[in-house]
Amino acid sequence: MSTPLPYPEHLRVRVEEYLREIDFLPIAPNERDEADGTQGLVEAMRYSLLAGGKRFRPVLALATVEALGEDPGRLLPAAAALELIHTYSLIHDDLPAMDDDDLRRGKPTCHKAFGEDAAILAGDALFAEAVRLVCEAQTGGPAVQIGILSQISRATGVGGMVGGQFLDLRDAGLQSDESLRRVHLLKTGRLIGACVECALVLAPPAPKIAATYRAFAHELGLLFQIVDDILDETGSEDLLGKPIGADARMGKATYVSVHGLARARDLAAERHHHAHALLDQIPGATDDLASLADHVAQRQN
Amino acid sequence: MSTPLPYPEHLRVRVEEYLREIDFLPIAPNERDEADGTQGLVEAMRYSLLAGGKRFRPVLALATVEALGEDPGRLLPAAAALELIHTYSLIHDDLPAMDDDDLRRGKPTCHKAFGEDAAILAGDALFAEAVRLVCEAQTGGPAVQIGILSQISRATGVGGMVGGQFLDLRDAGLQSDESLRRVHLLKTGRLIGACVECALVLAPPAPKIAATYRAFAHELGLLFQIVDDILDETGSEDLLGKPIGADARMGKATYVSVHGLARARDLAAERHHHAHALLDQIPGATDDLASLADHVAQRQN
Repeated sequence: MSTPLPYPEHLRVRVEEYLREIDFLPIAPNERDEADGTQGLVEAMRYSLLAGGKRFRPVLALATVEALGEDPGRLLPAAAALELIHTYSLIHDDLPAMDDDDLRRGKPTCHKAFGEDAAILAGDALFAEAVRLVCEAQTGGPAVQIGILSQISRATGVGGMVGGQFLDLRDAGLQSDESLRRVHLLKTGRLIGACVECALVLAPPAPKIAATYRAFAHELGLLFQIVDDILDETGSEDLLGKPIGADARMGKATYVSVHGLARARDLAAERHHHAHALLDQIPGATDDLASLADHVAQRQN
Repeated sequence: MSTPLPYPEHLRVRVEEYLREIDFLPIAPNERDEADGTQGLVEAMRYSLLAGGKRFRPVLALATVEALGEDPGRLLPAAAALELIHTYSLIHDDLPAMDDDDLRRGKPTCHKAFGEDAAILAGDALFAEAVRLVCEAQTGGPAVQIGILSQISRATGVGGMVGGQFLDLRDAGLQSDESLRRVHLLKTGRLIGACVECALVLAPPAPKIAATYRAFAHELGLLFQIVDDILDETGSEDLLGKPIGADARMGKATYVSVHGLARARDLAAERHHHAHALLDQIPGATDDLASLADHVAQRQN
């Protein structure tokens, strides 16, 4: 854990290029004509999708495939789908009726740039197009595709991301460690877990190894959230591209509000250490996974 | 076309029972505990999903399977998924930033009853759970499941329902026959088409027969929308459960505003007639499909 490993840029670049080239309009020429006028919707989708960032979720999915000894390119469509879904969740979370954020990565949020109606629909369409991408571009055969969509839909629905966002909005003020853990597990942990699960569907290892990958994903999700909460307290607005202290002002429980800053930093170090210990138990090239854990532990935005 | 055939109640009842029994909480006991607190979200989803109605889309899907000579029960999960998606679209369309409706089937809309944040999330979760349902409950094997999800996601994304809603919001005032046709094809036609397509994926007939089914679905979608526009002008608020004239007030193009009431009624009669003519070319028990066409032509809400 001395010098952090460099971020797996080769995977981020592949994801970025793939995302830029997704054609959201229908393929058949006659259907393309019918969709004339929806370019404004696609513009709103691409505005949020192509706003940059580390592409942490799809890179995690691809790095897991790599560690499993397979060509990461085989999971690109599903990895991109995970980023589409992450983007849709950010667009909806930023809405005035939800977290009411005006800035995201230093740019106006989708509803500020395109209107609230277009932002709701851009999120909805990104979700549909994510499913379409796995159905129409993901390789590995229908059983792999359904396995992937099963993981993605479970991680996204009531028992995942959307359920977690509901808890987050409704539990504000409930400052218990238990409710905090649950909100984060659902809101961010399950989708991060799904990135690893999709790779396990494509290239399944022995059950014991799969369990270690899952445990790693769990630690990574916890680490991600603890660092998020620390940054909300101590981060730079310039680097984060959004106001700090927003969660605290909304009375939301965070690792910092529940445990204090020093203990939150200790918890992050423990999760980081445990993530590395799990990777040591996994055969194969886990360097990129280790570098992702380092990145999450040390990120400034 | 003399006496209308009775609505296929046996199929509606099966759909209704299936929808009531969907368990939106995760299955694994430990995951169930984690999702503790999301019951309020499930309540909002079920409030809108179980508000009654004819279940036109899933019944259409099942009636098509029946006409194809297969057991309609085999498509129940996908048929239910189509109703979940239809419900999610109604919840989002009713939002203040969209059509801003307070009433739906005579009851307060989801955001009026549960708040705007819960309504956005209830719609999002219904979509995710629809995909999960097809992944985890639909029979016929992975190739059939992926074929179904491909149809559903195409009918829902940019080239379908969501794209159509975008056009509808942004084209207000654009009173051309061409833009009207395109909005409706995407907004309602594609999902109605997907009901028939899902049945064709499960029990594929000869290509020529499949094309006739598709043409029937197209006529049915047009008929549905023309009657919708006529009801918005002439319907009973009590029967519709919502204020009439809303589209006209928002300056939206409708079949009535573009063609006048008399011509709109003629167009509906033509579509209805053509739908029956197509069914006459299909071998098999198409009575329930014919009855659905009659129902759409004569519905009061």
